[in-house]
Amino acid sequence: MAQKPSIPKGTRDFSPEEMAKRNYIFDTIKDVFLLYGYQQIETPSMENLSTLMGKYGEEGDKLLFKVLNSGDFLSKATDEQLAQRDCLHLTSRICEKGLRYDLTVPFARYVVQHRNELQFPFKRYQIQPVWRADRPQKGRYREFYQCDADVVGSDSLLNEVELITLIDEVFRRFGIRIVIKLNNRKILSGIAEIIGAPEKIVDITVAIDKIDKIGIENVNCELCEKGLCQEAIDTLQPLLQLSGANEEKLAALEKLLACSETGMKGIEELRFVIDNVNRLGLNSTLELDVSLARGLNYYTGSILEVKACDVAIGSITGGGRYDNLTGVFGVDGLSGVGISFGADRIFDVLNALDLYPAGTCATTKVMFTNFGTAEAEASLKHIMALRREGISAEIYPDNAKMKKQMGYADSKHIPFVAIVGETELAEGTITLKNMIDGSQEKLTIDDVISRLK
Amino acid sequence: MAQKPSIPKGTRDFSPEEMAKRNYIFDTIKDVFLLYGYQQIETPSMENLSTLMGKYGEEGDKLLFKVLNSGDFLSKATDEQLAQRDCLHLTSRICEKGLRYDLTVPFARYVVQHRNELQFPFKRYQIQPVWRADRPQKGRYREFYQCDADVVGSDSLLNEVELITLIDEVFRRFGIRIVIKLNNRKILSGIAEIIGAPEKIVDITVAIDKIDKIGIENVNCELCEKGLCQEAIDTLQPLLQLSGANEEKLAALEKLLACSETGMKGIEELRFVIDNVNRLGLNSTLELDVSLARGLNYYTGSILEVKACDVAIGSITGGGRYDNLTGVFGVDGLSGVGISFGADRIFDVLNALDLYPAGTCATTKVMFTNFGTAEAEASLKHIMALRREGISAEIYPDNAKMKKQMGYADSKHIPFVAIVGETELAEGTITLKNMIDGSQEKLTIDDVISRLK
Repeated sequence: MAQKPSIPKGTRDFSPEEMAKRNYIFDTIKDVFLLYGYQQIETPSMENLSTLMGKYGEEGDKLLFKVLNSGDFLSKATDEQLAQRDCLHLTSRICEKGLRYDLTVPFARYVVQHRNELQFPFKRYQIQPVWRADRPQKGRYREFYQCDADVVGSDSLLNEVELITLIDEVFRRFGIRIVIKLNNRKILSGIAEIIGAPEKIVDITVAIDKIDKIGIENVNCELCEKGLCQEAIDTLQPLLQLSGANEEKLAALEKLLACSETGMKGIEELRFVIDNVNRLGLNSTLELDVSLARGLNYYTGSILEVKACDVAIGSITGGGRYDNLTGVFGVDGLSGVGISFGADRIFDVLNALDLYPAGTCATTKVMFTNFGTAEAEASLKHIMALRREGISAEIYPDNAKMKKQMGYADSKHIPFVAIVGETELAEGTITLKNMIDGSQEKLTIDDVISRLK
Repeated sequence: MAQKPSIPKGTRDFSPEEMAKRNYIFDTIKDVFLLYGYQQIETPSMENLSTLMGKYGEEGDKLLFKVLNSGDFLSKATDEQLAQRDCLHLTSRICEKGLRYDLTVPFARYVVQHRNELQFPFKRYQIQPVWRADRPQKGRYREFYQCDADVVGSDSLLNEVELITLIDEVFRRFGIRIVIKLNNRKILSGIAEIIGAPEKIVDITVAIDKIDKIGIENVNCELCEKGLCQEAIDTLQPLLQLSGANEEKLAALEKLLACSETGMKGIEELRFVIDNVNRLGLNSTLELDVSLARGLNYYTGSILEVKACDVAIGSITGGGRYDNLTGVFGVDGLSGVGISFGADRIFDVLNALDLYPAGTCATTKVMFTNFGTAEAEASLKHIMALRREGISAEIYPDNAKMKKQMGYADSKHIPFVAIVGETELAEGTITLKNMIDGSQEKLTIDDVISRLK
């Protein structure tokens, strides 16, 4: 009995229809990346584990897929490690390579390795799969695509302005209404500074984020439980009640963070970005959100995140600035800022809102039926003529029952079927059937070309 | 001291220029696949090892990259296996997944797993990387792309005809002159039959292949050394001297294989394919080559291979028919025929002959220089207007020295630089510099748009 085939959990096959939709997503993002002057690179799926380990925290190290060394993979393992079943230390002895976990670390590695060939600022985009040994669940996969654009080697905030208008343009093309949330790591540092509790920053941002859901009283209780003193909680109150337009929030923050140099620097940066973006005009809403803290240990300046307005789903794009992208690989002083589009979630949003443009899943334009050798020969000649004009065409390869042939065209959503039977063969004509309205007419090949072009 | 970064041997980074060239290759192949009615699918990079093992021979099993199980990967390993350092048996205990080795086995798995959702004949294409733990050498990589098109569920030879014209069209678009070599597994079986030595088929095809290089005498010596009896060698002589047009070769084969039913069936199949292809007309040469035996254990009918005429390199495309593609996964009776384009070798050929169309590596159309805040603000507005017209544009993000800014544009091969300095800012104009001929003129944004569009 042959095995019943399956695929590893957390991975997916993509059908032709899914691929057509995914290509629409990737192509749209690519077009905008190019319009903004980003250039594509690709890096290998496997990186040395020495490149990947220690870059994503202890938890991240565990989530890396490791690739077993070829051949006698135990040669570097000690008897003791084997006897003690010491998985942790054995891993580094039997595996040298791992699958990439994101596109940022390979990019940093790329920049350092090729720095003598690169011109800075270097604007690159990269669309490739990444792998994480996460517990699979709805909407979370072990293999998924990231679509990243980053600029490295420039600390100008114009890069942030450009990336925000780029995001705006991508979602305008998709027809997805979004809010772009913006924050700055220096604001968070400033808050920690003024309340004298830098280690509480995560608790504070988590609490601020909950205000809409649980109310300010409960948030204050939670902060107290987390060990924040009453004075700190009092100081935080204006922050918890930040509201109104971005300019009002900035004004409130200016009062609150007046004694923090870092905080004031964050406000200045935010204001520059917001003013410039407003001057250019956005399709979507740009909202200053001080509770935004993604990748706190990672970003050093701007932090941004995109939420869809009409679908309840996590962030569909995110990014920020990291002042020392390549420091870990020995090259200091290169500031980077980048964004990452979540293709899988965008796929879900487009499906939920049914926003794919007509024709996204279009397949062959016309299928020729097959009534046997002579008819097939004539049909193939017509098909080649159609293809020369850029019209996709195919022949049903077997002389099967008509019903089966039409069923094939139907299931493949082919809009036209061309019939060359005995009569048409003798006349040199083609009967063209419109599969949508059922109409049909007898035409010459030139007529068929002009109809379908 | 930070580590000096590198990538695993046999893998590659692709620079923006290389990516532009690779995209040209993939896009050209994709366009033709679609024109012929092939639909794209994708499968996961990781497959269960039970899907992959035993499909590529013993050597192939060794060349599979295996992925270490997450967590306590030693839990299924016995003390004995560990103590004896029994790599062979340990592998299956500590690894459940592997990286795909080709696109054909995952396709067969896909067809079986999704057979109830598919309409047959199913014409799919797939362009994804594959991984092999081969010893890296010039032109051989551990990660490389395959571009496959297959039809499954039809034994009509029209599929072969279509695939040959498809190959012809792809290389016509590339401008690469090729010979398409065609054979049929049944011819090889017929030869084995008439000389009564089926086990010598590989030796015979290898020998036939050498005639041009070493001459017929030496080939006969080699066959003798390989243990072929004189009678068999005598019988083979007409085969070794096959020459002339395909029709002449077929006629000679018909005499030689007259007593082999299988051989005669092979001739009939070859004649059908050759006649139909000739009727449609090819750009390239189609050559019957009885020494062609790629994947002897794999193919059951047509075998084909493409050689470039103007570059000395191995086959750049290959394929054939396998009568029972999905049998190994428990579904019999599905015949398949497919081809695989070797993107890496096509890349080498296009480079060697310098055949990339002008504009393949085109980047941003225009870069705006940066002279400070006010000028940058005005420039960004112009840039947005250009992008709305589909013209790719970017601003140099920092107010750096002019030489540095121009150097950036130059190294990125940006054909136009737009300058908004103090004068232009006051006038609302733009100085547009042509980076190729060095000319420059002062224009309005509307003029710039119409120049660059």
